[in-house]
Amino acid sequence: MSLSQALDYLEQHRDRFLAELEAFLRIPSVSTTPEHKEDIARAANWVADNLRAIGARNVGVHPTAGHPVVYGELPAAQADAPTVLIYGHYDVQPAEPLELWETPAFEPAVRGERIYARGATDMKGQVMASLKAVEAAAQAGLPVNVKFLVEGEEEIGSPSLAGFIAEHQDLLAADVCLNPDAGMLGPDWPTITYALRGLAYFELRVYGPAHDLHSGVYGGVVHNPAQALAELIAGMHDAHGRVTLPGFYDTVRPLTAEERRALAQLPFDPTAFYLEQTGVPQLWGEPEYTPLERVGARPTLEINGLYSGFIEQGAKTVIPAYAMAKISCRLVPDQHPDDVAEQMRAYLKAHAPATIRWELDVMAGGPPSITDLHTPAVQALAQAMEATWHRQPLYRREGGSIPVVAQMQEILGLDSVLTGFGLPDGNLHAPNENLHLPTWQKGMEALVRFFYQFGQNT
Amino acid sequence: MSLSQALDYLEQHRDRFLAELEAFLRIPSVSTTPEHKEDIARAANWVADNLRAIGARNVGVHPTAGHPVVYGELPAAQADAPTVLIYGHYDVQPAEPLELWETPAFEPAVRGERIYARGATDMKGQVMASLKAVEAAAQAGLPVNVKFLVEGEEEIGSPSLAGFIAEHQDLLAADVCLNPDAGMLGPDWPTITYALRGLAYFELRVYGPAHDLHSGVYGGVVHNPAQALAELIAGMHDAHGRVTLPGFYDTVRPLTAEERRALAQLPFDPTAFYLEQTGVPQLWGEPEYTPLERVGARPTLEINGLYSGFIEQGAKTVIPAYAMAKISCRLVPDQHPDDVAEQMRAYLKAHAPATIRWELDVMAGGPPSITDLHTPAVQALAQAMEATWHRQPLYRREGGSIPVVAQMQEILGLDSVLTGFGLPDGNLHAPNENLHLPTWQKGMEALVRFFYQFGQNT
Repeated sequence: MSLSQALDYLEQHRDRFLAELEAFLRIPSVSTTPEHKEDIARAANWVADNLRAIGARNVGVHPTAGHPVVYGELPAAQADAPTVLIYGHYDVQPAEPLELWETPAFEPAVRGERIYARGATDMKGQVMASLKAVEAAAQAGLPVNVKFLVEGEEEIGSPSLAGFIAEHQDLLAADVCLNPDAGMLGPDWPTITYALRGLAYFELRVYGPAHDLHSGVYGGVVHNPAQALAELIAGMHDAHGRVTLPGFYDTVRPLTAEERRALAQLPFDPTAFYLEQTGVPQLWGEPEYTPLERVGARPTLEINGLYSGFIEQGAKTVIPAYAMAKISCRLVPDQHPDDVAEQMRAYLKAHAPATIRWELDVMAGGPPSITDLHTPAVQALAQAMEATWHRQPLYRREGGSIPVVAQMQEILGLDSVLTGFGLPDGNLHAPNENLHLPTWQKGMEALVRFFYQFGQNT
Repeated sequence: MSLSQALDYLEQHRDRFLAELEAFLRIPSVSTTPEHKEDIARAANWVADNLRAIGARNVGVHPTAGHPVVYGELPAAQADAPTVLIYGHYDVQPAEPLELWETPAFEPAVRGERIYARGATDMKGQVMASLKAVEAAAQAGLPVNVKFLVEGEEEIGSPSLAGFIAEHQDLLAADVCLNPDAGMLGPDWPTITYALRGLAYFELRVYGPAHDLHSGVYGGVVHNPAQALAELIAGMHDAHGRVTLPGFYDTVRPLTAEERRALAQLPFDPTAFYLEQTGVPQLWGEPEYTPLERVGARPTLEINGLYSGFIEQGAKTVIPAYAMAKISCRLVPDQHPDDVAEQMRAYLKAHAPATIRWELDVMAGGPPSITDLHTPAVQALAQAMEATWHRQPLYRREGGSIPVVAQMQEILGLDSVLTGFGLPDGNLHAPNENLHLPTWQKGMEALVRFFYQFGQNT
């Protein structure tokens, strides 16, 4: 059978795959600092060469205004097979502070079951797992068409990617995007991330007197703008932590019973976890949702910054002329940032008193994203993971935003399935980043199984 | 009669008095900049010389850690006469921006009925009026004992004055302090300021997570400290603008019917005045009090500064680790700053949620002050003003604080009667400061009459 041939191939070439990963990790492709420009080019070419080596066609290193995008494709053995677009990035975070690394960041070292190097988990290990899974699956004829899109600017916010996607819509056409830039919750817990939150970011300015006033001479006749701002902010949540912007929850897709069950099964105590991670004296939020549900599946409104008047050491008795708040909402399906901006305006129109003036700037924003758990791609990945780990995968919603996922959905109409084979103690963005090799190897197996399963399900 | 002799003397020496004022105004005794140190010394000596010239004894220029204090005294003709301590300051505000002066700030120029120079109203003109009124009254034997205390640091917050007063309590013993550093509401409106507000100043810090958090990863499980601070601040006033600190109004002395009548008679429209002065779209405050009552006779709570998280240009999706507010209360009799600090603590204990930690620093503070309108000194000044202007004086409460007034009350147990002969368009602290000379001359007459009246009433 072709699947077993492919799995045998993985087994037989395990040492070479590790050697290739080490070579990839040796390139210090830090995207944020200009002195690594040549390393970035080397890493892009390294990916292109590896694509050619596994039999990809139409391989190109596409220049952009920033760092290049690498593309390559491999056809399925059969004409009517579905297409998987695999997203990855070859750039890495800076390695500083260097003195905290046990072995140098760009000299990969295997200790125990792990390999230590910058990018091992985020995400050169994941890119390699994808390339090598495709190489193995291709030995007996690929069951799906595969396209690779590997960018070099993820760690600096992917500024050139949307443009590239928009200009190459035909080239990138696919049935699903596989994005292995997420992770697992433990070595025995295969995980599928199926939703990300969106964002609506505002700057609210409240104006009172024409200039700062003496609080003795004028205190008692003007509405202090800092107080008025505090009153407006305080009114944006009710006593139960719910956001009060009119209509804010109208389009929020309720969690299904199935989703709540899945989130409740995650293998840790979320209260203890969040208390330890944040150091707060007590958790907070909508009481009718669990902490994981609140972070993953509920929208929020946060104050990101506050400024008014005199904030230096000491005392100054001023009534400030104005006050400012940075406010952002994390959004969930099916909220849209434009609607939330309208809701914020409606709230301010309804609640801002006539004693002050206000201005609202709408800053950054992006829609949330979610992938239907019943689609063939998610089902195929779940079956592949179960066959690999002998356990059903965990389904997880992430509280943050990954811009490329929203871009894929907006520009290409393409759902993303997020997974990955890094672990929580992989030290992403920190010293001693590492990759657990047995999990990595299981990840390759799961990807091979996914290609077969998806080709068969579709 | 001795009063009419004194008034004649004023009339006869009018030109010399103006010439002396001009000489005094030519000394650029700016207290805030080190390069005027010599001018400060010159001004102090000038006051001491003038005291000697009018017959004062025990005249001294007393060094302090800062600028010197000038003292001198003149005995009454009769042994059992009461004692008036006259407060003044010989320092002035800086003259900048110089280019906005029509004639140079330290080259006094008479145009029309006014003399233009820095310090003309604030307060060299008032110091001169006091010196010359005493000189005139002394011609026929002073009806009261007079002591002069003239400092050089008023424009920089009087840092050395409390120490000087505390060390010279016997020297400064008196029945009342006459403080001519206030003003009149119009040339036909003699004014007595009989109350000042006190101050209690706080810094409140609210702590949430141990460090700034990513709002995507943690938004929904922690109480944002900026939001918690806004909620605490918003709760410090009720919907009618009343302060909600427990017990805040318990010791507030109610306005008497007489006081409310007096404040209602002030010769201008306070709503129009405050709208124009502040530029706010609408006034604010406790609806059951008029704007003048709110500023003069009601305590307030103001936000003087706010800070939390990210306040630069742009967007950063952070849950801040902490948030800070500068908060101050203006106090009225019989509130005390220590009690208000306890009330603030009680409010925070009752309302701060268990999801955050808070710290309160008590910063600057000072008690309010008020002078009984029925004391002999106020009565004498009122009679003197009525005899001069043929109109009863206006009684006014000031919203600000003058530290020396509280110091006199705290250290010497001495009430202050505040008056002065500058007008609202005298451009205090601004270019083209000026003094209306006919009002100034009437002021001297009123002071002479006050000395006689007070000597007679007591």
